[in-house]
Amino acid sequence: MSDLDPEEFRRLGYAVVDWIAQYRAGLADLPVRPDVEPGRVREQLSATLLSPGLPEEPRPLTALLDEVDRVVVPASTHWQHPGFFGYFPANASLHSLFGDMLSGGLGAQGMLWTTSPAATEVEQVLLDGLAAALGLGPEFAFTGGGGGSIQDSASSAALVALLAALNRSSPEWQERGVDGTERVYVTAETHSSLAKAVRVAGLGARALRIVEPSPGSLAMSPTALADAMRADADAGLRPVLVCATVGTTGTGAVDPVREIARAAAGQGAWVHVDAAWAGVAALCPEHRHLLDGVELVDSFCTDAHKWLLTAFDASLLWVRDAAVLPAALSITPEYLRNAATQSGAVVDYRDWQVPLGRRFRALKLWAVVHGHGLSGLREHIRSHVALADELAGLVRADPGFTLAAEPSLSLVCLRVVTGAGPEADDNATRTVLERVNASGTAFLTHIVVDGRYAIRVAIGSVTTESSHVKALWKRLRTEAAGCLTKSSDDRVDPATSG
Amino acid sequence: MSDLDPEEFRRLGYAVVDWIAQYRAGLADLPVRPDVEPGRVREQLSATLLSPGLPEEPRPLTALLDEVDRVVVPASTHWQHPGFFGYFPANASLHSLFGDMLSGGLGAQGMLWTTSPAATEVEQVLLDGLAAALGLGPEFAFTGGGGGSIQDSASSAALVALLAALNRSSPEWQERGVDGTERVYVTAETHSSLAKAVRVAGLGARALRIVEPSPGSLAMSPTALADAMRADADAGLRPVLVCATVGTTGTGAVDPVREIARAAAGQGAWVHVDAAWAGVAALCPEHRHLLDGVELVDSFCTDAHKWLLTAFDASLLWVRDAAVLPAALSITPEYLRNAATQSGAVVDYRDWQVPLGRRFRALKLWAVVHGHGLSGLREHIRSHVALADELAGLVRADPGFTLAAEPSLSLVCLRVVTGAGPEADDNATRTVLERVNASGTAFLTHIVVDGRYAIRVAIGSVTTESSHVKALWKRLRTEAAGCLTKSSDDRVDPATSG
Repeated sequence: MSDLDPEEFRRLGYAVVDWIAQYRAGLADLPVRPDVEPGRVREQLSATLLSPGLPEEPRPLTALLDEVDRVVVPASTHWQHPGFFGYFPANASLHSLFGDMLSGGLGAQGMLWTTSPAATEVEQVLLDGLAAALGLGPEFAFTGGGGGSIQDSASSAALVALLAALNRSSPEWQERGVDGTERVYVTAETHSSLAKAVRVAGLGARALRIVEPSPGSLAMSPTALADAMRADADAGLRPVLVCATVGTTGTGAVDPVREIARAAAGQGAWVHVDAAWAGVAALCPEHRHLLDGVELVDSFCTDAHKWLLTAFDASLLWVRDAAVLPAALSITPEYLRNAATQSGAVVDYRDWQVPLGRRFRALKLWAVVHGHGLSGLREHIRSHVALADELAGLVRADPGFTLAAEPSLSLVCLRVVTGAGPEADDNATRTVLERVNASGTAFLTHIVVDGRYAIRVAIGSVTTESSHVKALWKRLRTEAAGCLTKSSDDRVDPATSG
Repeated sequence: MSDLDPEEFRRLGYAVVDWIAQYRAGLADLPVRPDVEPGRVREQLSATLLSPGLPEEPRPLTALLDEVDRVVVPASTHWQHPGFFGYFPANASLHSLFGDMLSGGLGAQGMLWTTSPAATEVEQVLLDGLAAALGLGPEFAFTGGGGGSIQDSASSAALVALLAALNRSSPEWQERGVDGTERVYVTAETHSSLAKAVRVAGLGARALRIVEPSPGSLAMSPTALADAMRADADAGLRPVLVCATVGTTGTGAVDPVREIARAAAGQGAWVHVDAAWAGVAALCPEHRHLLDGVELVDSFCTDAHKWLLTAFDASLLWVRDAAVLPAALSITPEYLRNAATQSGAVVDYRDWQVPLGRRFRALKLWAVVHGHGLSGLREHIRSHVALADELAGLVRADPGFTLAAEPSLSLVCLRVVTGAGPEADDNATRTVLERVNASGTAFLTHIVVDGRYAIRVAIGSVTTESSHVKALWKRLRTEAAGCLTKSSDDRVDPATSG
């Protein structure tokens, strides 16, 4: 037997669990982002792992854990750190790890129903349950004719939605491919994965229409959308898909889903809602307005692996017609034919995605729902929204800072105010971000809003609490004050400013 | 803090490790495939999980493990069972689980180098090391100007290879998309993921050219390929990509890579080698001839998650030019800009794939290489090839069976011989497969070769040993004898055969 003896697995598995427990317990003391040069890890690891080639003989697990401690941890950006405020969070809660471990233990391949009935049906039940909990409406549940699936990412969810839209839009698509008349509607704030999906699907960038925002906002203007679609249709082009974003990556802006769906309906365009980050907030009744109109759209995506405690990858994609993805994506060679598929009584999730194989990802989502309960999930969301409110209040009250956009759920975008004009504010904001990141106590990323540089504070790591946000605020103020002092020093004696 | 206390995680984590150890230890006693009706799991789980909606309050982990025992295990196809001979194996070795656990523990998101330098560079080092161990040639290593990446599946690897090929083939592709003149060359035995990639990329089925095999084989004829490409080019069409398969899904046939690469070179077509299952065998010098000519191709894919002990998903894709995938796939919005990327000194793996996010999958591959060593990996491959040789010998020596194709590595395709003609053989073979599967002792899938139904015996589960193959053979003979008896009974008195 070329695998470990189960008893040996138990002993070593405990050691790995211990390693994780210790890593998580000590996480807050590590710098969020490493100070490491490109190539350093390759250099270190090549010395032990490629000398001259990969090791011929097995090595003990302890040696692997040592290498991870020595090489990996010091060169990692710690996404689970309570001071991680970059991008969007990538929650990998400890409960979710249990589900992932079980998934690996079972080692099932859920490409077809028949290749692991439980993997498919657990996913169906969970996604039906979550559709209800999010208030998506019964039409998105399998029991209502639609259904959900776990994709690896919102990028892939957008791609398969686009493929389903192309298939619906033209009976020629499967045989003749795209024809250059397809058009896809987004805004300048839409996630780049839509542009990527358009490229992957062979449409080319010319197919992408950037719809103007409503005046004074970053949200898509339904009027501008309707005008753009009408003009295209009049020119013999085909409006195939509109992507409405609930919670843009930049500032958390929310496109008006209901009005967009109404405008798209007139042109027969597919409406996809990308709520990758913000969608899970709809578990809380007070945030459900974000999804107003979602009952009118064709597909809806939100990521359990961003802000819903579930380790990557677990992007949840619902469609209001369970037949659309298989209709677009199914190709069945002889070796995949089976009685269950032919009966039509089952879902084969391979036909809901590009890859053939799939892991039993529903287990980690189940472990999260099970371990936290809906009440715990809501508390998780609410606690971060409250922290963002707190931070936004501090920013508003401080003349040295300003909000770069209205805060959205747990995302706060801010700028330093120097009093020396927007260019100086840009520079100071950039410097403050760099200094905070260099401090290792927090990690921030940036965005450009209305042409101006802003710091994004995306609150949402599993262990982020009030103290971490307070510490960040203190650090922001200190670094901003340092910039101001330095910049007034500069004014006094530019020659010495180096 | 909304996550588990590390000490609590430790206690519960041990329980999950125990569950896995117990599941794996008892696996051989479970039926490989469940006897379950469509909808049964949904029914059972809805009663506990959706009554009326997902649970409001947290539940103890023990309750989850109980549900998994009660609902999931009895409705699972056990891919890690030593009697699993279906499809291709999906090795999820216990060593690989350690790496996956560590990946979840770190919870890093490796989309960019800067979002987790270690995640990127560990992957680079491992893939350089494996390229050398497989004999791919230095040009496929980062140190040689190429490089490898871990994709989720060979399907996705084929898709990104096609996208890179489209980008190379036309400077207009990114702006104007595909134009209908692209052609992609495969055989009737090529995996359906190529047809899917062609559809996804917007080319339509008309772009897919099915090249004839060499006479008397199932492998692509280089002459037929050259003729097809020339005819297309003469007609103003563009040969964009040729897929050569090393180890087809049906019978393990091997396309002649060197001759195909030569033929393709004349037309400037990209050559992708899909060695999803068989490629890993090249770790053994005696099987390296399978990859003859691979130094001439553009991209090469083999799955660590099939027959190389690494839990899904870990499909390894190498390209001989590290710039081709980013050139085809990169789109950079403001929030992903960073100094490391701009320096050009790093690899951002998001540009090597369709999804933006990515897990630290290299850890599970590392854990496998570390825990088994190259010698252990070779032993794993060799043991299964030896078992297949043994089985093929038994088939050859038994007049009641015949090989449906030459055995390939660890894949044996066989048919029952009734003496009553090919139709009767088809029926008996189908019946034998159904009965073996119904017995629960082994799981087999089928293929059609030259219009005839055949049983595929894909040896390769981590724990499959000689005794399991012997038991399968005994069962095959018993069931075949049963068919013959029944069919002669039928002949005696058809009226009683029901």
